[in-house]
Amino acid sequence: MVTGIGELVTNDPALGPGPLGTLTDAALVVADGAVAWVGPAVAAPDADRRVDLAGRAVVPGFVDSHAHLVFAGDRAAEFSARMTGARYDGGGIASTVAATRAATDAQLRARLRSLVAEMRAQGTTTVEVKSGYGLTVADEARSLRLAAEVTPETTFLGAHVVPPGADRAGYLALVTGPMLAACTPHARWVDVFCEPGSPHAFDGDEARAVLTAGRAAGLELRVHANQLTAGPGVRLAVELGAASADHCTHLTAADVDGLAGGRTVATLLPGVEFSTRSPYPDARRLLSAGVTVALATDCNPGSCYTSSMAFCLALAVREMAMTPAEALWSATAGGAAALRRTDVGHLGVGARADLAVVDAPSWLHLAYRPGVPLARTLELPQA
Amino acid sequence: MVTGIGELVTNDPALGPGPLGTLTDAALVVADGAVAWVGPAVAAPDADRRVDLAGRAVVPGFVDSHAHLVFAGDRAAEFSARMTGARYDGGGIASTVAATRAATDAQLRARLRSLVAEMRAQGTTTVEVKSGYGLTVADEARSLRLAAEVTPETTFLGAHVVPPGADRAGYLALVTGPMLAACTPHARWVDVFCEPGSPHAFDGDEARAVLTAGRAAGLELRVHANQLTAGPGVRLAVELGAASADHCTHLTAADVDGLAGGRTVATLLPGVEFSTRSPYPDARRLLSAGVTVALATDCNPGSCYTSSMAFCLALAVREMAMTPAEALWSATAGGAAALRRTDVGHLGVGARADLAVVDAPSWLHLAYRPGVPLARTLELPQA
Ligand SMILES: [Zn+2]
Ligand SMILES: [Zn+2]
Repeated sequence: MVTGIGELVTNDPALGPGPLGTLTDAALVVADGAVAWVGPAVAAPDADRRVDLAGRAVVPGFVDSHAHLVFAGDRAAEFSARMTGARYDGGGIASTVAATRAATDAQLRARLRSLVAEMRAQGTTTVEVKSGYGLTVADEARSLRLAAEVTPETTFLGAHVVPPGADRAGYLALVTGPMLAACTPHARWVDVFCEPGSPHAFDGDEARAVLTAGRAAGLELRVHANQLTAGPGVRLAVELGAASADHCTHLTAADVDGLAGGRTVATLLPGVEFSTRSPYPDARRLLSAGVTVALATDCNPGSCYTSSMAFCLALAVREMAMTPAEALWSATAGGAAALRRTDVGHLGVGARADLAVVDAPSWLHLAYRPGVPLARTLELPQA
Repeated sequence: MVTGIGELVTNDPALGPGPLGTLTDAALVVADGAVAWVGPAVAAPDADRRVDLAGRAVVPGFVDSHAHLVFAGDRAAEFSARMTGARYDGGGIASTVAATRAATDAQLRARLRSLVAEMRAQGTTTVEVKSGYGLTVADEARSLRLAAEVTPETTFLGAHVVPPGADRAGYLALVTGPMLAACTPHARWVDVFCEPGSPHAFDGDEARAVLTAGRAAGLELRVHANQLTAGPGVRLAVELGAASADHCTHLTAADVDGLAGGRTVATLLPGVEFSTRSPYPDARRLLSAGVTVALATDCNPGSCYTSSMAFCLALAVREMAMTPAEALWSATAGGAAALRRTDVGHLGVGARADLAVVDAPSWLHLAYRPGVPLARTLELPQA
């Protein structure tokens, strides 16, 4: 039993006021890795073992529904050049692809596990992991095989970019044919970087081909959509019933209407706009329209190398005028919706016992104290 | 001896290229708490004990030259209301003053030590601590007595605000008379919140009275200047030779010229602009003019409750177009200059052995990986 919870966010409106379903002076009983009882501490049942949090706040573990964690090398010099306006030709994503192909399984596994551990130490208990830096049949399959060692939320992103020097049509045939076949055993999801204006990304027709082939192979859909321009990605995601359209930085009124009327979550990734010094998505427009919004890190070595969901939450409040409550919901329940998971992102009875402790009397400190590593995953003793 | 340093920032141009004086594959010998030798690992002398950092980067411990850490309570609800545009009348700073006066020594000490430990865990090895939430003779003296337990950089800020209900002239006489006398034994510095447009802050003449009285009592000078308007604070700081003018958000051309021609450091506090959604200071204008720039947190429960120097560094790069190298220098050597300390902020021979380890191959990751708690103070075994 976890006791001494000063403030408990359940995301279950039946348990407390508002969408966050917040309780104060609460306790929570865990059995077999799931929440067995939750309520006021004074009403708590007996329990063999107690973990006393001494008044700290507890929230559902963060659900980071968008991350690229299978890669080698880093691009710190490229980041530095971008932020200072200096010329740089270090190869961009191609340099990550080359380093990833050249790395051993052990090297990729070590980096992947180190990033997952870093996330877990910061309160993230569910993470999605994409391929997309292999871009050959063998390297994409390897990336997903390694990703599946750490999470069930594995995403085939062979359609990240057309590899340097490759023929577009030929690469698309590979992605929708042999590469898909080799990756499907290790993947839950298929994703595509839909951005018609970008020479190495995919246009609407190409993205549709990737997604429909993935669906035919048994994968579920998510889309990198409308990051740089108001392209066809969001419309396509909604039409095909994708679980999530990610980025959503440039949207038409029709895109917003489509998201509001469909069952596709809009996943915002403000760390990208922070790390590329770009304008932020308009979260309020989406929320006002009734769209379900998730927050995720997009942790990757190119456009955003943060692993901190708390940082993204603080950015959402500062830069996108989300209320702290909206931002917390989107970083937990929103992420779960973007992954179509009902067992995470909340702490109602039956949910996975994925708890993040906030070293503060209130979860509000996640936004009130930006940059401070207050959140951590509660590691419960094994029964 | 500290070995396996992948990248070592010394801030000593004699030791390596640029203002950061960076070495790769370096080692550093510590004796009696000071740097006794620093150079390439291959040339390192023998040593009894070795701490192997396995290729991680090392930078001088952060010098946080502006923090308000002696207080009780918090103002998370006020923060939330401010960021969401909601009405709020929780009393602002007056609520912190009331809570601080009501707290026991033990309560204030616990909060203060917890914040200093939190900073240290994030790589800050020198911190300045101000009074300013007591605003009575006894409460200000108590605040400084407690602050002096944790740092020599203690600052008397009785002139933080005119307390609610107090007579301005009477309070100014108290601050420059009996309160100053009671606080001087525990303080190195005197500070004043100079902001003529703000009803509870101090105008130029009042600020001059506070600073000259403090100097006559043996204290050195620093000034909260030009946060909300281009007032007289910076001019006054330069004229009186204050060590630092802090905030510098609104500056005239004459202010910039004054700073460039004087010996007063401009200390920028971008966490405040982040947490109040305000425009950032123009760091490039100051740097172009040749002004020495420091970065600090302003950690306080009202306008900015971050304790993370790495977060402020990342903000300086994203929001103030400082280069990563300028931001790191300002967060270390710049802070030392703002405190007129020559023993910290660098890692040349003779400096204090205040080392921050960055859990990455390069210090650039401090900006490249925003929000991730990569920096920590290296706790060396006692000799
Ligand atoms: Zn992505
Ligand atoms: Zn201050």
